[in-house]
Amino acid sequence: MTAVEPFDAVDVIRTKRDGGAVAEDALRWMIDAYTREYVADSQMAAFAMAVLLNGMSRDEIRVMTDAMIASGERMSFAGLGKPTVDKHSTGGVGDKITLPLAPLVASFGVAVPQLSGRGLGHTGGTLDKLEAIPGWRAALSNDEMIAQMRDVGAVICAAGSGLAPADKRLYALRDVTGTVEAIPLIASSIMSKKIAEGTDSLVLDVKFGSGAFMRDVDKARELARTMVALGTDSGVATTALLTDMITPLGLAIGNANEVRESVEVLAGGGPADVVELTVALAREMLALAGQPDADVEEALRDGRAMDSWRRMIAAQDGDPHAALPTPRETHTVTADAAGVVTRLEALPFGVAAWRLGAGRARAQDPVIHAAGIDLHVKPGDIVSAGQPLFTLLADDENRFARAAEALEGAWEIGAEAPASTPLVLERITA
Amino acid sequence: MTAVEPFDAVDVIRTKRDGGAVAEDALRWMIDAYTREYVADSQMAAFAMAVLLNGMSRDEIRVMTDAMIASGERMSFAGLGKPTVDKHSTGGVGDKITLPLAPLVASFGVAVPQLSGRGLGHTGGTLDKLEAIPGWRAALSNDEMIAQMRDVGAVICAAGSGLAPADKRLYALRDVTGTVEAIPLIASSIMSKKIAEGTDSLVLDVKFGSGAFMRDVDKARELARTMVALGTDSGVATTALLTDMITPLGLAIGNANEVRESVEVLAGGGPADVVELTVALAREMLALAGQPDADVEEALRDGRAMDSWRRMIAAQDGDPHAALPTPRETHTVTADAAGVVTRLEALPFGVAAWRLGAGRARAQDPVIHAAGIDLHVKPGDIVSAGQPLFTLLADDENRFARAAEALEGAWEIGAEAPASTPLVLERITA
Repeated sequence: MTAVEPFDAVDVIRTKRDGGAVAEDALRWMIDAYTREYVADSQMAAFAMAVLLNGMSRDEIRVMTDAMIASGERMSFAGLGKPTVDKHSTGGVGDKITLPLAPLVASFGVAVPQLSGRGLGHTGGTLDKLEAIPGWRAALSNDEMIAQMRDVGAVICAAGSGLAPADKRLYALRDVTGTVEAIPLIASSIMSKKIAEGTDSLVLDVKFGSGAFMRDVDKARELARTMVALGTDSGVATTALLTDMITPLGLAIGNANEVRESVEVLAGGGPADVVELTVALAREMLALAGQPDADVEEALRDGRAMDSWRRMIAAQDGDPHAALPTPRETHTVTADAAGVVTRLEALPFGVAAWRLGAGRARAQDPVIHAAGIDLHVKPGDIVSAGQPLFTLLADDENRFARAAEALEGAWEIGAEAPASTPLVLERITA
Repeated sequence: MTAVEPFDAVDVIRTKRDGGAVAEDALRWMIDAYTREYVADSQMAAFAMAVLLNGMSRDEIRVMTDAMIASGERMSFAGLGKPTVDKHSTGGVGDKITLPLAPLVASFGVAVPQLSGRGLGHTGGTLDKLEAIPGWRAALSNDEMIAQMRDVGAVICAAGSGLAPADKRLYALRDVTGTVEAIPLIASSIMSKKIAEGTDSLVLDVKFGSGAFMRDVDKARELARTMVALGTDSGVATTALLTDMITPLGLAIGNANEVRESVEVLAGGGPADVVELTVALAREMLALAGQPDADVEEALRDGRAMDSWRRMIAAQDGDPHAALPTPRETHTVTADAAGVVTRLEALPFGVAAWRLGAGRARAQDPVIHAAGIDLHVKPGDIVSAGQPLFTLLADDENRFARAAEALEGAWEIGAEAPASTPLVLERITA
């Protein structure tokens, strides 16, 4: 006997199309039936477009997220005996913050289960960066992951396929149907995986600016508020920082060079903006884990964070002391005239690094670990004529031309220093 | 070598999603690539939802229609030596008007190429009705169709699969994705087939009310205006009448009984509303064919229309003199109390006739030609207690209960006659 379906996909689509709220049981059914492939891609695509254009209530987003969690397995870190806190960034250019952040927070006895992804398009992937380290492996079993959280505290590894499989299918669909930008769908996609993962608490780094997924600060704020509400509603203590992605983070854009810069931060140095954001996010994470007064900067200075990093890398078969790959070819761009750097736009630098081989166009492509861009200056820096501005790194000099094309108009040298803008614009809590 | 596609479906979807107008070449490509199955159903579904919610300009609708025409063959009646005029109704309950109308108009020496469909849901299909006539066949080759237009004038036959195949695929997709109600898509779907068919001119019967596709009169008017503009832009002289589908048309709802009622009209009798609409549409069609002063009512009275009907039926192997099928079971509903009929709602009567077997739930199901409903009264009629109101017709008495369910609250007998409303509300021209 064929089971009778309790709802009709067309009714659900019409409700959202006509601006209504989809009832909880109908929405749960829609996601479940989509996972079972009873609801077709075409039906979910029409639904996603209706959600993008007509929105979803806070209740609907909570139900949607919960239904995506219910589509797969749920992890639990309950037996660990220490608090868990995770961090998610919406992604940006030069955003290597997870690398110093996870071991830094773990050095305070907190477990950090950082399930990460690979890059696609102009924003890099945390796993791609770490794979620049000889021997390091991204894939861990759930048991390995939990053992490492107990012993080392910090884990950065690939998300298993068991978490929120509905989200996986929906994400691929949104990508080809012009429905990526729907805030309720972005929020439920990110949060379903984080909640299913089983973390006690979560800090979100929601970026705005040309190099971010959300260019517009108001949209980024709406996304941050939606996700904070969603985490809170689902029992995961969640805080968000709204941060600048108009300019690349730090001086390194790529993979191996971003690892190098992360190690500098863990050694108590590194670019000011990378340190500032690492410290700000660590404070939020530790506050959620019950240590609001933790001296984060001290742990960077005294080597505790670096120890934690080395143990984390070694636990995943990486050699923290091994030399990182270096590029075969480099090309340095210098200043035409003296002045002050007024602008250095994240998106074109991200695209250029991607074209140099640091990123991939198709999910199955490899990345070139040594490729990318080293910046020598940042906005506000004074330069003289002929001074190096940045260096392109590649394994093949033929890549320089297309990277340079992407960089046309991407920076500006003027007479007056730009107005300084805060890196962390706002803190959003429940 | 793989041909490089000049556009990206996601870009086209995004343009419409963000409220923009899609450029002509991009829109043509989208429809062509969908026909080639390069653009996926899920992408077209997201596009259709964006069109439904954000609309399309008159230019976009024209291009969309033209692209659908270009997806298939185009017929031509240029060698016929007489004007061609077609009629399209958006469908309603008891709408048998095509049956008397086509031979009536043809009796004035005009060719009427009436490509028709089968019913699905509560509105009947013209071909289903004619198939109640023993021997009559719906499928004609293009050559047979053109020969019949030359010899007889009127042809009512099944649309071949060669006209606007993109529309066929899109129509099936819209049905399952909640995007049927998009006016630009309805208009381009109807008009692409009519224009590809090659008619010189076209009269549209756009219905509003509970039994119609467009319940709301404003939406029906918008659809009518859109289609008149589209026909005009494409060189097909087009007029529309906006007509009432709050009450069923005539006294017969079904298949064989609707043929019987049509023959009454052709014999100079029949219900007043069926005669009124047949005459109104015939006048519009003949005006477009260059005979604005044709005495349509005379052709009904003097047997010319009936002759034309008999020749049309015989040309398609039907026997115009054969007895029509009669139902095995009947059930008559009578008035509880004396009064005046104030309301008789089209939609529930359509649904009830469908449940009695006059319509089909799935495209592959047969219809029962003798099934349906015979009305004995219409709104405004005075009835005494116990007077028959209508008779349900079926081949199986088990069908009566579910039909009666559909009819709950579908009619009303009150103290005062309802305000009379015009059958033809408006005439819409370019």
